[in-house]
Amino acid sequence: MISQFSPIQFNDGILKLIDQRKLPNEEIYLEYSTLEGGHDAIRDMVVRGAPCIGFTAIYTLAMWLKNNSQASLAEFSQACSYLKNARPTAVNLNFEVDRVFKLVKEISSFSEAYEKVVNFGHLQIEKSERENRAMANFALVDLDKRLNLNKYKILTHCNTGFLACGSIGTALGVVQNLFEKDRLENTWVDETRPYLQGSRLTAYELAKLGAPHKIVVEGAASYLMKNKLVDAIFTGADRIVANGDTANKVGTSNLAILAKHYNIPFYIVAPSSSFDLSITTGEGIDIELRDENEILCYKDYRIAPAASTAYNPSFDITDGELITGIISEQGIALGNYNETLKSIVYDNA
Amino acid sequence: MISQFSPIQFNDGILKLIDQRKLPNEEIYLEYSTLEGGHDAIRDMVVRGAPCIGFTAIYTLAMWLKNNSQASLAEFSQACSYLKNARPTAVNLNFEVDRVFKLVKEISSFSEAYEKVVNFGHLQIEKSERENRAMANFALVDLDKRLNLNKYKILTHCNTGFLACGSIGTALGVVQNLFEKDRLENTWVDETRPYLQGSRLTAYELAKLGAPHKIVVEGAASYLMKNKLVDAIFTGADRIVANGDTANKVGTSNLAILAKHYNIPFYIVAPSSSFDLSITTGEGIDIELRDENEILCYKDYRIAPAASTAYNPSFDITDGELITGIISEQGIALGNYNETLKSIVYDNA
Repeated sequence: MISQFSPIQFNDGILKLIDQRKLPNEEIYLEYSTLEGGHDAIRDMVVRGAPCIGFTAIYTLAMWLKNNSQASLAEFSQACSYLKNARPTAVNLNFEVDRVFKLVKEISSFSEAYEKVVNFGHLQIEKSERENRAMANFALVDLDKRLNLNKYKILTHCNTGFLACGSIGTALGVVQNLFEKDRLENTWVDETRPYLQGSRLTAYELAKLGAPHKIVVEGAASYLMKNKLVDAIFTGADRIVANGDTANKVGTSNLAILAKHYNIPFYIVAPSSSFDLSITTGEGIDIELRDENEILCYKDYRIAPAASTAYNPSFDITDGELITGIISEQGIALGNYNETLKSIVYDNA
Repeated sequence: MISQFSPIQFNDGILKLIDQRKLPNEEIYLEYSTLEGGHDAIRDMVVRGAPCIGFTAIYTLAMWLKNNSQASLAEFSQACSYLKNARPTAVNLNFEVDRVFKLVKEISSFSEAYEKVVNFGHLQIEKSERENRAMANFALVDLDKRLNLNKYKILTHCNTGFLACGSIGTALGVVQNLFEKDRLENTWVDETRPYLQGSRLTAYELAKLGAPHKIVVEGAASYLMKNKLVDAIFTGADRIVANGDTANKVGTSNLAILAKHYNIPFYIVAPSSSFDLSITTGEGIDIELRDENEILCYKDYRIAPAASTAYNPSFDITDGELITGIISEQGIALGNYNETLKSIVYDNA
């Protein structure tokens, strides 16, 4: 079902990416066949989301191997370094490039490398899909145990679906799974200021699926919960630490506090790679401050007075004690996170 | 101090209004000398905010009286009806037109009416300024009793300053008063989606005053409170009922719940005319649903996918029990509102 909307396709040495900068109003696929092309697609944010950046990196290295089947490992190493520079702070880019380098180094004949790397890419996407499906099922089992409704009204924040993940996604994978099982009554899509990932990207994904959804401003969250229009909240995570404290897109912790007030279950959904159990509490996580112009302007319009400035923290920390459940591909932890998270996190995800 | 920024000026039969539709990027004053002009200014939202609409109505009727000094009371009554139609749902427009009609009816010589109505308008603005100043002082006394800080970091929502009120305003009047007394460290201006009254109008007012302020997305509220960057929250009110339940711009009740969670005082500031003690709880207040395009579009840009819809409740209800204090021009009530509100509300405000 999902493949027709996949933001990443790779066939016969050609990488095809949907240009996420143009969404939701234009659906344009761009094609690449070289290392430089893949590098620029990552640098210029044609592709975004940690998993999709990782998959793009794998296929980009495959393209280099196809175009340079007689090259040396030293030359391949240079290609790897070049690709890492496309977005130096993207952890997943480094991680996947290193994995591909290791794979190629262990192959006896360099000419086999292209095919092996392509297969490795396919396997990673399939694995991601399998893992997202597992998360979605853990979520549904817990929802049914807790609420036992025929259909659910879900609220979500930011963008966690196929555009970021290639596969069905984390929090939005839960929504897609409900929709596929005819268990989804409505999805409230938080517009997610300032970058509007909700109204631009999550709404696009749900519209593509044909799944019921309505966009709301973040200020409407309490109104919706008070009027019993939300059964549960699901968001993704940027980082989860040992006590369950979770860094995610700014506004996430607002929702968790409102959910607690209204006694609505609030879940975090994220793969093992998002957990860092070596950090004890959320105070150990740095929060990125982003450009104030994301708030002060919309495209070429200046919204705010020329003399005004803005403050733009990009993430916030949700206290573990506010989170009903944390879901990974390994299972669901329900509180007491210092003890329970270990069992749902792979050491080497 | 405030007069130089007044959005409403009236001299020698000419009404001068700042065109609020062009703010904050263009400061254009429009001039009117006829009933039709004042009517159109209200209808076309050159002027907004209940108090300012009321003042505009008074001066507009004065202009008619100047231009029609030989007319009959019946003709004046027709002019009044015409003006009320400029915004049929604006309670304050009706209220002020009726007061002016009553005033004119009681004057023996119709030719004196113009001057009397102009003076009545001036008096209403002065009264509003006096009342706003009283509210601001009640707020500061309670802040000092509770927190005793040298300077305060205030968070506010929507627009409640001189653009809406003519005078210093309600919640923003509290901020201006702190600033004038050198007691204001910073104002966090909630951008207030979808209509952006915060980043467009409140930021404009604070920039005009030269008062310290930073615009934030509503999602950042929990981040700010968790990091101890907010000492107190002040908002206005659309309607306050007997138990303290308060209707105000959507997102207000989010802030009240977050404030409770972080143990930060949360205040409502509003004149007696905003109270309706005949309604027992917030369930008796209807919430306006506004055009979804306020969320789906920004000016001529479509933000969301063509297939997506939005849900746009314009107000929410904040439970009285979440509100630290409710402030009117008569005083401050601190909880137990079924008992305490009566003493701070004029019967005939």
